[in-house]
This record gives sequence, structure tokens and C-alpha cells, in this order.
Amino acid sequence: MELSWESSVADSINAIYLLFSAYLVFVMQLGFAMLCAGSVRAKNAMNIMLTNVVDAAVGSLSYYLFGFAFAFGEGPNKNPFIGTSFFALKDIPTSNYDYSFFLYQWAFAIAVAGITSGSIAERTQFSAYLIFSFFLSGFVYPIVAHWVWSSSGWLSPSSSSGSLLFSSGAIDFAGSGVVHLVGGIAGLWGALIEGPRVGRFDAFGKPVIMRGHNATLVVLGTFLLWFGWFGFNPGSFNKILVPYPNTADQGNWTAVGRTAVTTTLAGSTAGIVTLFGRRLLAGHWDALAVCNGVLGGFVAITSGCAVVEPWAAILCGFFAAWVLIGLNILALKFKLDDPLEAAQLHGGCGAWGLIFTGLFAKEEFVIQAYDSGRSGLQQRSYGLLLGGGWGLIGAQVVEVMVIVVWVSTTMGPLFYLLHRLRILRISIDEEVAGLDISSHGGYAYNANEEESGPRFYGDYMRIHNNS
Amino acid sequence: MELSWESSVADSINAIYLLFSAYLVFVMQLGFAMLCAGSVRAKNAMNIMLTNVVDAAVGSLSYYLFGFAFAFGEGPNKNPFIGTSFFALKDIPTSNYDYSFFLYQWAFAIAVAGITSGSIAERTQFSAYLIFSFFLSGFVYPIVAHWVWSSSGWLSPSSSSGSLLFSSGAIDFAGSGVVHLVGGIAGLWGALIEGPRVGRFDAFGKPVIMRGHNATLVVLGTFLLWFGWFGFNPGSFNKILVPYPNTADQGNWTAVGRTAVTTTLAGSTAGIVTLFGRRLLAGHWDALAVCNGVLGGFVAITSGCAVVEPWAAILCGFFAAWVLIGLNILALKFKLDDPLEAAQLHGGCGAWGLIFTGLFAKEEFVIQAYDSGRSGLQQRSYGLLLGGGWGLIGAQVVEVMVIVVWVSTTMGPLFYLLHRLRILRISIDEEVAGLDISSHGGYAYNANEEESGPRFYGDYMRIHNNS
Amino acid sequence: MELSWESSVADSINAIYLLFSAYLVFVMQLGFAMLCAGSVRAKNAMNIMLTNVVDAAVGSLSYYLFGFAFAFGEGPNKNPFIGTSFFALKDIPTSNYDYSFFLYQWAFAIAVAGITSGSIAERTQFSAYLIFSFFLSGFVYPIVAHWVWSSSGWLSPSSSSGSLLFSSGAIDFAGSGVVHLVGGIAGLWGALIEGPRVGRFDAFGKPVIMRGHNATLVVLGTFLLWFGWFGFNPGSFNKILVPYPNTADQGNWTAVGRTAVTTTLAGSTAGIVTLFGRRLLAGHWDALAVCNGVLGGFVAITSGCAVVEPWAAILCGFFAAWVLIGLNILALKFKLDDPLEAAQLHGGCGAWGLIFTGLFAKEEFVIQAYDSGRSGLQQRSYGLLLGGGWGLIGAQVVEVMVIVVWVSTTMGPLFYLLHRLRILRISIDEEVAGLDISSHGGYAYNANEEESGPRFYGDYMRIHNNS
Repeated sequence: MELSWESSVADSINAIYLLFSAYLVFVMQLGFAMLCAGSVRAKNAMNIMLTNVVDAAVGSLSYYLFGFAFAFGEGPNKNPFIGTSFFALKDIPTSNYDYSFFLYQWAFAIAVAGITSGSIAERTQFSAYLIFSFFLSGFVYPIVAHWVWSSSGWLSPSSSSGSLLFSSGAIDFAGSGVVHLVGGIAGLWGALIEGPRVGRFDAFGKPVIMRGHNATLVVLGTFLLWFGWFGFNPGSFNKILVPYPNTADQGNWTAVGRTAVTTTLAGSTAGIVTLFGRRLLAGHWDALAVCNGVLGGFVAITSGCAVVEPWAAILCGFFAAWVLIGLNILALKFKLDDPLEAAQLHGGCGAWGLIFTGLFAKEEFVIQAYDSGRSGLQQRSYGLLLGGGWGLIGAQVVEVMVIVVWVSTTMGPLFYLLHRLRILRISIDEEVAGLDISSHGGYAYNANEEESGPRFYGDYMRIHNNS
Repeated sequence: MELSWESSVADSINAIYLLFSAYLVFVMQLGFAMLCAGSVRAKNAMNIMLTNVVDAAVGSLSYYLFGFAFAFGEGPNKNPFIGTSFFALKDIPTSNYDYSFFLYQWAFAIAVAGITSGSIAERTQFSAYLIFSFFLSGFVYPIVAHWVWSSSGWLSPSSSSGSLLFSSGAIDFAGSGVVHLVGGIAGLWGALIEGPRVGRFDAFGKPVIMRGHNATLVVLGTFLLWFGWFGFNPGSFNKILVPYPNTADQGNWTAVGRTAVTTTLAGSTAGIVTLFGRRLLAGHWDALAVCNGVLGGFVAITSGCAVVEPWAAILCGFFAAWVLIGLNILALKFKLDDPLEAAQLHGGCGAWGLIFTGLFAKEEFVIQAYDSGRSGLQQRSYGLLLGGGWGLIGAQVVEVMVIVVWVSTTMGPLFYLLHRLRILRISIDEEVAGLDISSHGGYAYNANEEESGPRFYGDYMRIHNNS
Repeated sequence: MELSWESSVADSINAIYLLFSAYLVFVMQLGFAMLCAGSVRAKNAMNIMLTNVVDAAVGSLSYYLFGFAFAFGEGPNKNPFIGTSFFALKDIPTSNYDYSFFLYQWAFAIAVAGITSGSIAERTQFSAYLIFSFFLSGFVYPIVAHWVWSSSGWLSPSSSSGSLLFSSGAIDFAGSGVVHLVGGIAGLWGALIEGPRVGRFDAFGKPVIMRGHNATLVVLGTFLLWFGWFGFNPGSFNKILVPYPNTADQGNWTAVGRTAVTTTLAGSTAGIVTLFGRRLLAGHWDALAVCNGVLGGFVAITSGCAVVEPWAAILCGFFAAWVLIGLNILALKFKLDDPLEAAQLHGGCGAWGLIFTGLFAKEEFVIQAYDSGRSGLQQRSYGLLLGGGWGLIGAQVVEVMVIVVWVSTTMGPLFYLLHRLRILRISIDEEVAGLDISSHGGYAYNANEEESGPRFYGDYMRIHNNS
């Protein structure tokens, strides 16, 4: 037995844990695709699914070429604002970063644009989508990831990164802010600049309901996202074989399990609150709202999942449901048309999640998650309501604010530019006919007229020529 | 190298194995949702999917608060009938139970009510569903789990629990009885007390076919359940790093793989038998019956998966198919209307699985699964047909009987009470219109009338107001 | 600490890695089912889904009984052409082969027939399907697997197998040839012998478009296949805990991650190329073509995924897209009707993948993948364009040729025999009516006429009698 066998064992264990977590996070891309497809009208189903496929494909290349470098590249100067090495995976693997880490982060990067695509669904030109998706997942998002998640980021809470903001740094464990708030704010600007879908508000400004075409797909997508979140949150420890000092039998493996539990409890609570809340408000048991409620709970707990007690996760989900319900009412009032409620859900619940962590993060868990395996434990700020002082909550508020400002000043102008160039929104005719027929060569559902089979899929057919 | 590094490695390996198995078991919830949705008529699709989402959400809270405590709580007195500690995860983690174990068991608990919801589909009030689901997964099921799976349970086969029933205990490795028979018997009482759906039997008592609305969803659900069963059965070892005494190169890792193989063979055999059996009986190649046949094989092997040889698993699946076919004929005869065949499938094949284990459990495997890592191997009963005596088969029969009695005396009266209070079944008008429109605000499939897109989803639209 | 603890740890780690990879590969069966279902017309959806379920079920038994033995059985004589032991898993586990390895290989075996079923979709008798599926996955495929993957195979590149073909052996890491080319060539013969579907080409030989009925299922299937490919390619190392000699911190865990990255990059690049290529050729953003493009990239990288650099994977995907586009044009020209483009995609891109590996395999990676943990590193041939000589590319060309010849001389005559016996193709009447109604007892999508619910699923109903 020599040292290298021990490190081989540790590397193998951590690689399995991180790779399979990455695979689960990737499933969220499918979950998004199904959720979005089911939530739009049938005539736009293929369009929005293609955006999800393209997010993954384009995001693979851009994140490989430069996104990962912007996020985690550590040049000799350790720039706190942007990474400067690892372009095209040069020098990977290093002792800190193996391919498995890249793959895990890649799965996160491709998720961001998917959030935004929900906000601007059913009315956006596909070429505009290609442009903003590339810019968002290749540049805007990786910068934020660098701030919060790389050890040299100025918002990082990792004790190896030297001085921490407010002696704390922001705790955004799996990305309520880095992923969801970023995607949500981008979606907000997109939806605002594009304006509502044709017919979404009538002549008197009253909202007209536009239901998605397939609730089964919504439920399918929700469960797949839930499944994937078990990679997203518990996987964000990156390593599972990290024993905690001064404990006999605990380490990251305990915290990974607890993170899965807090995630489950927050989403479940938000779902239940939404079930009864919507029953009171709308008079029926609203399956689709429950799905969104569950997702809102997940988004909110994503920041604090690793550092809060299970009972706190229940509180997190409880309020997340009301944040979502409240913001949906507000969105209608301001005539914001977001077909997936993505800005409200990912933006609103994401922001709430960051604040929640500032209130309920437990000192012991914070130290375990961020100082394990490092010498020189320092004094740390933790949840305000648990007596941890103002440092952490201050850093959380700062993260919310800088994300809102950064995304607004980058994605806002981009959407506006596309808008002024008249390449952002499709024409009214195309919108009425549907994106699938106008841009994608045919509808998602087809019947062949010449055949005598069941003709249940409408009368529209389009030549789709392979040659 | 010190002891704690070794235990850290072992804990990490076991945590990865158990957590990812738990995630797979969770996928079964999605599998159920899709299977059920596809097997009912379109007008009730949203209703049954909501029950699956709510099972997961409500089950999370109830299992966290008390279900897990009833099942695995070990007070100082080691009550053999009900657990008395670990409420709200108090004292977790202990040296025996980490969060990963809770999560794994949670995924099992939420599955039970899903089984029952199939039996009473298309005619049950949603509020009644909330009540019985809460009672079933929060109380009735955890008690049975305590009997069989906790080390202090009176039916437990674990050698650490002192004296075993018939010097054997019941072997229900992953829950043919604890999960499936419980859910199936509950469903049987629900279906009996509610009576058949309107129009299921005509004026002369002849059955009228009510096909599900979407076979694609049935196949999707079946494959997802198959996928999830790889967590359900092979995951039930709880730990994978357990070497077997007196063997050079075997341990739980070998048995985990073998369990995946027996599971696969049993389900596959049952599917093939059903394929040809239905070809003979019904004259066509019946895809939906094959799906149910495969699932019947899985349900049956779930009890003995870890303790039988692969060839025995083939026998298990062979007879499971005929059990299901026979019970389906019987159900028609007795005018039992179970839209998902859940009582027949989970109840019938579950009971068969317990008996099968009593016939074919192999001594070596039983000792490996239940006595590994424990000193003082005792004499054990094993499969009757392999010469293992009457102890095990006796205990298996006892498990079948006590489950039938326990579930009947708890769920039966509950369903009857709900029935007498007139809050169990929906009105005929609602049933004819469909649950989705009467209770859930609209159909699962929609088209927007104002739009010129393809109008393939019927003419029904419902106001769904977000405000 | 004794030796057996170390080997227990290693066995557990490797078992987790291989078993969960096997579960992912199994998901591909579901992915195929959904992809195929969505790509055919609604009247044949149930038929093709049943073939996928039956592939898994029948394949389980045949691979257990003899398929695995043909592929990996190592008698004392080490036959280079066919395996001769391990029938019905006799002697398993050995020190080399545990149940987890069988399960992993089983998941590959059941995939092959699924590829072929796509080529002959919508017009094949179900009983003919049973025959060729059994023959293909039980005999034709295992033989090829033995040649390339078993250590005694004549095409094997494993240094433990003695003399290698051209001092190199063929590198087909996860089976561009063994799996995909085999399935594709079988499909090609099936499609050629059956001829095109009724109406696929009009009286003047001009192709008539026959779109699949559901693009959502196609996207669902594509993402599930992507997910499963993370088991297919990175899982093919079989063991993850294999440190590389002469490196401080690398081992299979690094290469497994890199393999996931190359896989992702190849599929993504092929998807992007197809997106823009189809935009130029067909004038719209073609979601379905992008899905197939992504899959083509995956098929192509499957051979070399473990032995090429990420940048090379991008080249692999780039050309794979054009191979697929070109072969699709060619197929139309030759009036080959392959509803899933399976022969073009799996055959064409599979063959390209083998050649690509011969051009770009990196010496260091080849040695790591095939000589690690073995003494006596030998000189090896590697990618021609990297200066590795003609040995490897020669062996790759040989693999392409022998697969084409072997599958053509086995499956070709079988299809022809079935054709002459008039049990291969269904009658024109049945084809026009659809396989689901003629062979499977009803359509995949149903509405109940007596009910007042939404009647969106056509007017066809069929008695489906459970008794």
C-alpha cells in the first residue's frame, strides 16, 4: 500500500460521484425540453424543443472553447472577475480540475439558456435565439460563475481564496443565483422587450388564457427536472470523499445525502403549498401550478441546500411557493407575458433562495462545506436568524444585486439591439401560423393524408424533403 | 493510513451506491405517472398524474415527520411492531442510518400510494385521495416496513435482531410484500368499495372495453419502471462494500450485480410468456399486456431477487405471467374494475413472489445477504424445494397473511368511511365529463381556438386564470 | 489492513461504475422506442414500440443462455472466432467476469436489434421480427463482439491476447462497428429486401414525404439516447480504478471523464453542422434532422471516444454530419426506404467512426486504454495522421469489411428466406390500415366513443378483451 493507491481510490470515487451527477444534470435539459414543449401551444412545440437541443449542442462547443475558461481558468494572476486559462481545455487535467469537473460544469452552462428560452417562447426568431443563447451561456453566465464558484472569484466563500467579501463571501452552493437568477433576469428582459404574444391580452388589457398543449409533457418534464436536481444540488460538492475534521464518522457523504433531503423537502413543501393555495385562489386542484410550485421550491433551495437543516428547507419551500404565486399576479398586472413563468420562477425564487441562505445557513454546515480539508479554520459569518451576523446576508444581497445589474447591462442591450434590428421577434403572420410551420418545416404532430390510418393530427402537412 | 480513512472510503462508496439507487427508485414515480396517464382515458389524465406528483410531495413531508420513524426508529426498547424514534430525522445521522438511507426509504414510501391510485383511477374524489394517500404512506406502509425490514421487526430475517420467526424470518428483500402487496390490497379494497367505472359493465354485466388513451405513455412508463427497478432491487443491499467471509473475491458487489440479473430475467420471461399467452388467448400481439407482464415479473422477483439463482428467476417470471393472466380473468368474472390491473399485478404477483422465495431461496445467498459481516452464523432455513425446510416458506406465508389482514383492517374501513361520508367517489356527471374538467380546471390536452394553428386537440377549452 | 480489503474496495468501486453505466445503456432501449415511435406514423406506433420491448425481453433470455457465451466465453482453447463457455452464466462470477459485466454487455446486445427494427419499420410482420431479432442479437452480434472485444478475439487490440492483427488490432472502443455497423448493415438488407413502404415513391419514382407522427417523441428519444451514451462510451472501460503507470495522478477515472467529453463534443458538433447544413439545403431549421445529426456524431465517436483528443472529436462529428447528409441523398436516389435512416446513420457513421479512429487515435491514450495494468508495454500502431503508421488504420478497414461481409452473409440470406416464405412483409391492406390495428389489437391512441370527453383521438376503437 502506497500513497498513490489511496489517491487512485479517492480519485475514482470522486469521479464516479461527479460524472454520474453530471449525467443527471444533463437530464434536466430533457426535462426543460419536455416542460417547455408541453407548456406552449402545439404549433410552437418543435421550435422550443429545438432551442433546447441547440442549447446543448452550441453550449458544448462554446463552453469547451472559452466558457469554461472564463469561469474556472486560473491564470497566474488569479483574476477575480474573469478566468484566463483552460481555453479549449488546454492543461486539463490539472491536479484540481479533471474532465469530470468540466463535464459537470458544462451541464450547468447549457441549462441557463434553457431557462431564458421559456420566457420568450412562441414569438422569437430562431436566429435571434442562436445569438443570445451563444452570448448568454458562453460569456454572461461563465463570468458570474467565476465570481461565485471559482476560488479566485471576488464573491467566493471558499476559504482558500484569501480575503472574503464581508469576511464571508456569498453562499450560492448550486446556483440559485448563478444559474437561475441569471437565466430568469435574462428572460425578464427578453419578455419585456419582445412584448406579449399576440392575443395574450385583449383590447381591454384583460389577460386571455393560452394554455400549453400537453399537460403530460409538463408532468414528464417536472419529474425529470426533479430527478436531475439530485445531480444539481447534491453533486455540487464536487468530491464526496472528504472526511470532516473532528468527527468520527461524517464527511461529505453525509452532507451529500442531507442535501438531497433538503432539496426534496423544499420542492415538496412548495408543491403542497401551491396545491392548497391554488385551490383557494382558483377553485380547483391545479396540476400544472403544482408542477411549477415544486420547481420553485427547488430553485429556492439550490443556494442553501448544503448548509441548512431539513426543517429550514421546509420553510424555504413554503415561502418560495408564495413568492411564485405573488410574482405571477404581479406579472399579469404589468402585462408581462412569460409563457413558462420562467422570470418569476427562476428569477424570483432564485433571489429568495439567496436571501434564505443568508438567514438560515448553519455555522457547522458552512464550515464543513467550505473549509473541510483546509487548515486554519477561520471565523465565519452564517445565517442571520441563527446568530451568524450580517456578513453572510450582506454578501447574499450583494450577489442578488450584482447579478441583476450584470445581466441587465449585458442581456438587456443585446435584446434591445436585436429588437431594433428587427431580428428578435417573428412577424404577426408567422406568430399566428406558429413557428413550427414558418421556421421549422412542419408541425410537431403529423398525419399522412394519403393514408387511411387514424387522422387525428390535423390537416396540415408539409413537404420535408431529405434531399 | 489510519482507520478513519478506511471508513471514509467505505462510507463514500456505500453512499454513492445508495444515493444513486435512490434516485433510480424515484424515477419509478415518473414511470408510474406515465403508465397511469397512458392507461386512463384522456379526460382523466391530469387527475392521475397529479396524484403521482402529490404522492411524492405529501409523502416527503409525512415520511420525514413520522413515516421513517415508524418504520426504522429504534428506541431503547426495540419495539417489534412500530418504530419510536427518528421523528423529523432527529438524531440522524447515526452510525447505522445516514441521510442516504432515509432518502432511499423515502423513494419506496412514495411508491406505495401510486400503486393504489391505479386501482381507483378515473372515479375518485381528489380530496379522498389526499386522505388515504397520507394514511397509507405515512402509517399503514411504514408499520409493515418495520415488521420486515427493521432489525427489531418481528418478521425480520436479519440475524442481528435476535430470535427469528420460525428460526428464519420472512425474506422480502426489496418488498414484493412490503411495497407491492400492501399497495395492491389497498387498491383492491378501494376498487371494491367504489365499484366499477360508469359503463365498464353493460346492462347484462358484460365488460365493455375502456382503453387507455395513449400507448406511448404506457411503454414510456414501463421502461422507466424497469430502469428504476435497478435501484429498487439491487439497491436494497443498502451497502455494496461488504466482503463475504470465506471467499476470496466476492462480496455484496457480486450479489448486487446478480440481483440486477435476476430482476432482468424475471421481468423478461414474464413479458415473453405474456406475449405468446395473449397471442393465444386474444389473437394478437398485445403490447400493453406485455408491458404489464414485464412489470408482473418484476413485482414477483422483488422479494427473492437477492437470494435466488438466475435460472430460478426465470421460473419466477414464468409463473408470474400466468398469475397475472389468471387474476385478470378472475377480476372480470367478479366485476372488479381496476383500470391499471394494480390489485392483480402488485397484489397477486407480489404474493406469488413471497411464496416463490420460500421455495427457491438458496442457502448460500441467504447467508450472504443477511448474515455477512456478523459473527456467529446460525443455521438458517432456506428454499423448501432446495431442501431448506419449512421455516422460511412458513414465514413467507405468514407475511402474506398478515399483510392482507393488516391492510384490510386499516384501509378497508377507511375507504368504507369515506364512502359512507360520500366523499370517496365523484358524481356520475363528473365521471362522464372527466375528472380533469370537473376538478382540475381543464383537460390535459388543449388547443387555442383563436389561433389558426392545427386544431387537433378537441374543442374544449377552459379558463385557467393565473391571477 | 489486508490485501482483501483493498480488492474489496476496488471491486466495489468498479461494480458501481459498471452497473450504473449498464443502467444508462439500458435507457437507450427506451430512447430507441420513443425515437422510433415518433418517427413512424401513428398507425404503426404500437408495433415499433413492442419490438423494442421484445428486443429487451427476448434478448435477456437469449443473451443469458448463449449470447454472452458466444461473445465472451473463454474455453481452454481460446477460440478467436467464437466463445465456448459461460452458457447460462455457468461459472460466473470468475475473477475476470462478474455479473455486472454480463449486465453491461446485455444492455449492448439488446440495442442492436433495435437499430435494425428502425430500417424495416411500418411494413414488417411481427413474427418475422421475432425470428431475425433472436438470430441477430443471439448469434450474429455476439460473434462480432467476440472478435473485437474478447481478449481471445482475432481482431482484439488487447495486449493480453497475444499477437495482434497488424501488430495493432482494431480499436472499436464502445462499438461503432460491433454495435452500430452491425445493426445498420442488417437494416440495410432488411430494407432492400422488403422494398419501400407503400406510397413512399410515387408513380414517377419521386419520393413522397412520410413524416413521423410526433416530433416530441423524437426529441425525447434523442435526449434519452444522449443520456444513455454516457453509459455506453465512458462505461466501456469496464473498470474505473486503474491507475496509469508513470503518471502521478491519472488513471481510468481521467480517461472516463475525457471519453464523456469527446462523446459530447462529437454529437454536438454533428448537430450544429446538421442545423446549418439543413438550413442551407432545405431552407428551414430542421429539428428532426438535428436530432439525427447529433446521433450520427455519437455513433461515429463511439469507436474512438477513449483514444482521441477532444479537438479530434469535433472533427469526427463534423464529418459524421456530412456522411449522414450524403448517405440520405444517396438513399433517396437508390430508393432505399429506411424510415429511421438507421442504415445510413448507424451503418454510415459507424463505418466512418472506425476509419476516424484509425486516423486520429493518440498513442498515449491507446496505451492507457489497452495496456494499463499489464506488464511489457509493446510498440503499438496508432492514428495514421498522428504518425502512428498503417497498422491501426489497416485493422480498422479490416473490421469494416469483415462486419459488412459477415452480417451480409448471415442476415441477408435470413431476410431473403423470410421474404421467399412470404412471412417477412405484411400485406398491402394491412400496411394501409396500419400494423397496430392489424396485428396488435388497436391503435396506440384511443378515445372512448360512449364518453362525452374530448374526442381528439380519432374514431377508431377496437375491442381489447382481457379475458
